[in-house]
Amino acid sequence: MSNSYGQLFRITTFGESHGAGVGVVIDGCPAGLEITAEEIQVALDRRRPGQSALTSPRQETDRVQILSGIFEGKTLGTPIALLVMNHDAASKDYSHLAAAFRPSHADYTYTAKYGHRDHRGGGRSSARETLARVAAGAIAAKLLAAVGVKISAYVSQVGTIKVRKPYRELDLGKTDSNAVRCPDGKVAARMISLIEEVRDRQDSIGGVVSCVATGVPAGWGEPVFDKLHAELGKAMLSINAVKGFDYGSGFEGLGMRGSEHNDLFYQDENGNVQTRTNHSGGIQGGISNGQDLYMRVAFKPVATILQPQISIDEAGNEITLEGIGRHDPCVLPRAVPIVEAMAALVLADFMLLAKVAKV
Amino acid sequence: MSNSYGQLFRITTFGESHGAGVGVVIDGCPAGLEITAEEIQVALDRRRPGQSALTSPRQETDRVQILSGIFEGKTLGTPIALLVMNHDAASKDYSHLAAAFRPSHADYTYTAKYGHRDHRGGGRSSARETLARVAAGAIAAKLLAAVGVKISAYVSQVGTIKVRKPYRELDLGKTDSNAVRCPDGKVAARMISLIEEVRDRQDSIGGVVSCVATGVPAGWGEPVFDKLHAELGKAMLSINAVKGFDYGSGFEGLGMRGSEHNDLFYQDENGNVQTRTNHSGGIQGGISNGQDLYMRVAFKPVATILQPQISIDEAGNEITLEGIGRHDPCVLPRAVPIVEAMAALVLADFMLLAKVAKV
Amino acid sequence: MSNSYGQLFRITTFGESHGAGVGVVIDGCPAGLEITAEEIQVALDRRRPGQSALTSPRQETDRVQILSGIFEGKTLGTPIALLVMNHDAASKDYSHLAAAFRPSHADYTYTAKYGHRDHRGGGRSSARETLARVAAGAIAAKLLAAVGVKISAYVSQVGTIKVRKPYRELDLGKTDSNAVRCPDGKVAARMISLIEEVRDRQDSIGGVVSCVATGVPAGWGEPVFDKLHAELGKAMLSINAVKGFDYGSGFEGLGMRGSEHNDLFYQDENGNVQTRTNHSGGIQGGISNGQDLYMRVAFKPVATILQPQISIDEAGNEITLEGIGRHDPCVLPRAVPIVEAMAALVLADFMLLAKVAKV
Amino acid sequence: MSNSYGQLFRITTFGESHGAGVGVVIDGCPAGLEITAEEIQVALDRRRPGQSALTSPRQETDRVQILSGIFEGKTLGTPIALLVMNHDAASKDYSHLAAAFRPSHADYTYTAKYGHRDHRGGGRSSARETLARVAAGAIAAKLLAAVGVKISAYVSQVGTIKVRKPYRELDLGKTDSNAVRCPDGKVAARMISLIEEVRDRQDSIGGVVSCVATGVPAGWGEPVFDKLHAELGKAMLSINAVKGFDYGSGFEGLGMRGSEHNDLFYQDENGNVQTRTNHSGGIQGGISNGQDLYMRVAFKPVATILQPQISIDEAGNEITLEGIGRHDPCVLPRAVPIVEAMAALVLADFMLLAKVAKV
Repeated sequence: MSNSYGQLFRITTFGESHGAGVGVVIDGCPAGLEITAEEIQVALDRRRPGQSALTSPRQETDRVQILSGIFEGKTLGTPIALLVMNHDAASKDYSHLAAAFRPSHADYTYTAKYGHRDHRGGGRSSARETLARVAAGAIAAKLLAAVGVKISAYVSQVGTIKVRKPYRELDLGKTDSNAVRCPDGKVAARMISLIEEVRDRQDSIGGVVSCVATGVPAGWGEPVFDKLHAELGKAMLSINAVKGFDYGSGFEGLGMRGSEHNDLFYQDENGNVQTRTNHSGGIQGGISNGQDLYMRVAFKPVATILQPQISIDEAGNEITLEGIGRHDPCVLPRAVPIVEAMAALVLADFMLLAKVAKV
Repeated sequence: MSNSYGQLFRITTFGESHGAGVGVVIDGCPAGLEITAEEIQVALDRRRPGQSALTSPRQETDRVQILSGIFEGKTLGTPIALLVMNHDAASKDYSHLAAAFRPSHADYTYTAKYGHRDHRGGGRSSARETLARVAAGAIAAKLLAAVGVKISAYVSQVGTIKVRKPYRELDLGKTDSNAVRCPDGKVAARMISLIEEVRDRQDSIGGVVSCVATGVPAGWGEPVFDKLHAELGKAMLSINAVKGFDYGSGFEGLGMRGSEHNDLFYQDENGNVQTRTNHSGGIQGGISNGQDLYMRVAFKPVATILQPQISIDEAGNEITLEGIGRHDPCVLPRAVPIVEAMAALVLADFMLLAKVAKV
Repeated sequence: MSNSYGQLFRITTFGESHGAGVGVVIDGCPAGLEITAEEIQVALDRRRPGQSALTSPRQETDRVQILSGIFEGKTLGTPIALLVMNHDAASKDYSHLAAAFRPSHADYTYTAKYGHRDHRGGGRSSARETLARVAAGAIAAKLLAAVGVKISAYVSQVGTIKVRKPYRELDLGKTDSNAVRCPDGKVAARMISLIEEVRDRQDSIGGVVSCVATGVPAGWGEPVFDKLHAELGKAMLSINAVKGFDYGSGFEGLGMRGSEHNDLFYQDENGNVQTRTNHSGGIQGGISNGQDLYMRVAFKPVATILQPQISIDEAGNEITLEGIGRHDPCVLPRAVPIVEAMAALVLADFMLLAKVAKV
Repeated sequence: MSNSYGQLFRITTFGESHGAGVGVVIDGCPAGLEITAEEIQVALDRRRPGQSALTSPRQETDRVQILSGIFEGKTLGTPIALLVMNHDAASKDYSHLAAAFRPSHADYTYTAKYGHRDHRGGGRSSARETLARVAAGAIAAKLLAAVGVKISAYVSQVGTIKVRKPYRELDLGKTDSNAVRCPDGKVAARMISLIEEVRDRQDSIGGVVSCVATGVPAGWGEPVFDKLHAELGKAMLSINAVKGFDYGSGFEGLGMRGSEHNDLFYQDENGNVQTRTNHSGGIQGGISNGQDLYMRVAFKPVATILQPQISIDEAGNEITLEGIGRHDPCVLPRAVPIVEAMAALVLADFMLLAKVAKV
């Protein structure tokens, strides 16, 4: 189970890293949405490996095929199936790993759960699965754009190098202007130096992707278990290598008192309800309040490194893993479109649920 | 929607703070589990208000009634309905709030979503709903105990006062030995002083509850969207006042390199697979690896404070809210059993799902 | 599992026949629907035993309590919990049956599945569970009435005595004018005689409940697995003692050719699309077409009879069951409100789903 | 929605009749099941058009591709994606139907629901979708075979020509020995004559597929809404052209008294619980009792006929539809593997659910 996500705008992904292909079926996208393969491709291209010197050299063109659900440029209301075939699946690279448990990978846990596994490139546990999320997210984002919702993620921390400015003081349109996808150019330069240093040491490094959603109206989210931030949290935590999630004041606001933290309401000149601060991150009681949503997603340093490591194999024998294979020293830049996609998938679902809240 | 949680061990909660009662229906608990009303009551008593000078003086005896699903001391496999009637629902306290939007509460967002709301004590958005989770969690915990899983939460931070020791160096059996539920007695004393100071200033303060689960075998969790930590994160984020979640190295491990962060495998003297470190928090690729699970849950300072605050009402008029009503200056101590309950509910569900993973 | 039904308008029922009570939680009812306990009670009173000489003499007043979800006469959008306590639960009647497998009851299958069971009055397998459906159905029916949908069921067959007239030639307002709930008075009289004869022979008899829904607009239903008639079929087959379901021409239309069976479209004077015949029963491709829905539900003769029967107990010993206990010789009259309730629950769900079909 | 089916063994189908392809994703198939593309192909070949003079001449080779989830001949526990590309999608045949509402097809209802539709060959409403079910059903059947469950469907009625013998007196191994898939050779010959006559008159005819499952142990099925027969009913009713479902004594047993209908229990020489009759169709209280399951599925005469018919178009204009296109005069023979597939999908799901019923 677990390969589906969403209640009304529901995706099901499939595919192993070195199997025939990776894809997604989207069930519940409303009929009549205009969408083209090119729009989906643009999103995939932002996630693709080989974009810069900071990312994995795996060369996948990752061309998306629409198998169903779109006719004459518009969604039919029927399931939309999207498929990307695997071409550069250099599985010979992985044969020596058939029985190895790579440290902090899913090799051991998959074996414990399923009895066997596709060891080639991590199989289903590979982050290659996230291309299916990005493809689906492009459709969700289109649906949201039609009601004025815009989602922008960016790299806000690499190692301990942080963007100190709040998102409102950044020009999020500049995120893609550098290889690390950090809209603060000076911080970006330091991040890039750090990643290059880490790469040259055959190591890896983690960080934080921040994400902002503007234009979300008040009233999206469900009040108890499926709180808007609870679903956003689950969606982000389901991305490979994610270790933490917070929103609004998050972990960093724990020193505040209630009297400081409370966001006071006022009515603006247009008669709209606003808050003077936004420690709530746009969500109160699990439901959007019309302010910007903002959240942070923590990624660990990825487990694949080029240094030799000691481990064991399925029989319990100690082995030495040589660091071959292709990998990213820092997944953060490529994680930006994935975080945006997951946010879009969550918001699209709540947009639909909001339509049935009242008689 | 959103009032249900879990796939196989599935709960549905109901009830408003000042309605007739609050309860839960548990569907999917396996038949044959021995459980008594007293065991459930013990769990509820840990969550109950009025336990100490640090908590809300609301006096609810919160006696649980079993309406169905348990016969001759054992679960039937049919839905277990548990009900707690509301007695001390002093709704006259709240009548002046009928049209008010209290800052950082759900009054405005519920109105935006549903058009109207039960304003008495927050209605459905009240943390009183969590007693239903605790009652259900007691049954989940019993199911888990039978396979050796034990869950222990404790207050690890209040404001900026933190427990510095890792959980392995603490005696988690001492958690309930002080009013703040922190097993490190010295830190507890400082936390209590801080909460008293905050209470006396008619303010509130947040913090962190840490949670450890021991005895979880390798192989629990689903690999893609329903990763073990993604569900734990959602479950925790769905608790009132929670702003963040991380597990294992979390946000605090972002300075590490991959070569430090990777948990190296070895085989112990009993032939079991172990890891030398546990930055993974017991979860790799979304699936438990047999090591301890550990996680942190950040709670904001609660929104209800006794100071006067400026806000608006439904008509947009500015109003001054006087701080009456009953509340906790710091919800952390009472959140401990709630965090444990949510962890138990998630783990019970994955325990059942693990039974159908292999032929 | 299995105690929940519906996707957006979702009910979860609980309760054993002789436990503390029987109830239902409705999650997903839109906020703002006006509903009173009295309206729900009216529906329950039609299902109640002891209404006439044809039904079980069990005396339950079956008073419904609203525990949550309704405030100041309107639904809140939060879960609506309804509870009926069991009073006349004469469990001493059943003690001799603790280990017996009654023929064609669920005693054996529950034991096979769960290992043990509540033997008192059939426990969870008792048709007493259907009162929860009827209570929830009253709310669904209110929601539907607001958009002009009306559901009418009636007894169309008892044993081999059938109403020969099509539903359009009957006055469905007369259904409750006789004890058997058949709107054709002459046929009703013959049915009543048959039931009395069967009752006097300490036996039981089955039949058919027909159900018509008018006012359903075109476009409700989901096209593939959740076809409107597939959900109606499941809902009806889930009622105790049901053995079959058909709709439109059903089993009785199998002699027709396609050229006779096809319902030809035309546009009426108001510009509405109509069909000249309605062999489709108002459903084409799983989606309503704006014509009346009609369907038939077959009920077996109930298993509880007053004659002695040979059976076995849990140890495999042959036993003789004496026919004590209270029962209905023919459940059809009391099944009428249950069939209506299930139809309302299905249609309310599809009404909500239809709101998210298009952008 | 609605394109998924099953709780633990869950399928999601996609594809339009004349789009790029049709496929299915199976989520929840346990790991370690041995299955090959050839085994799936065998099942598809039984459903394929063009098998005999009785079926549609559409020539699709319908070769299945495994995209994911199977590695080294065994299921991985990850989603299994199966794809059949559309080759002989002669969409020029359908261009004149772009705005037409064909009688008793889904053209009008899809337009009412979604606003637009893929008119080519019925788009998503085409029975071509059922190949995805058959492909998935082959995997479910393999899973069931391993525990001794065997499913056999056959044509038991065409028009009013019926097989009179109960299934126990037939050799179900002979079902595929004739073009109509009826194991009673004499009745088969009459059915074939009737279908040929109907075909020559450019008309269509319906009938009944009966289905038997042997080897199902006691204890499968869920007791309330997801009764075993309720899910079987839904599954069958979701097949194109199905109008009715019954099981055990069904509609035909309504003349019986309870004293005749009750299936008396006894213990056989091996200590197994058996029943002397099986009017229950192997299901009591929604749960299997260890006897054979049997059920009947009624199919209407298909709507596509070669005669001219009067209808309207989207603008409300009257039009005459000429009967071109390819079709089956009687879908029953090709429905046999579809009915078997749906039964297998339901039973595989309940097999898994039965594993979590008891502690």
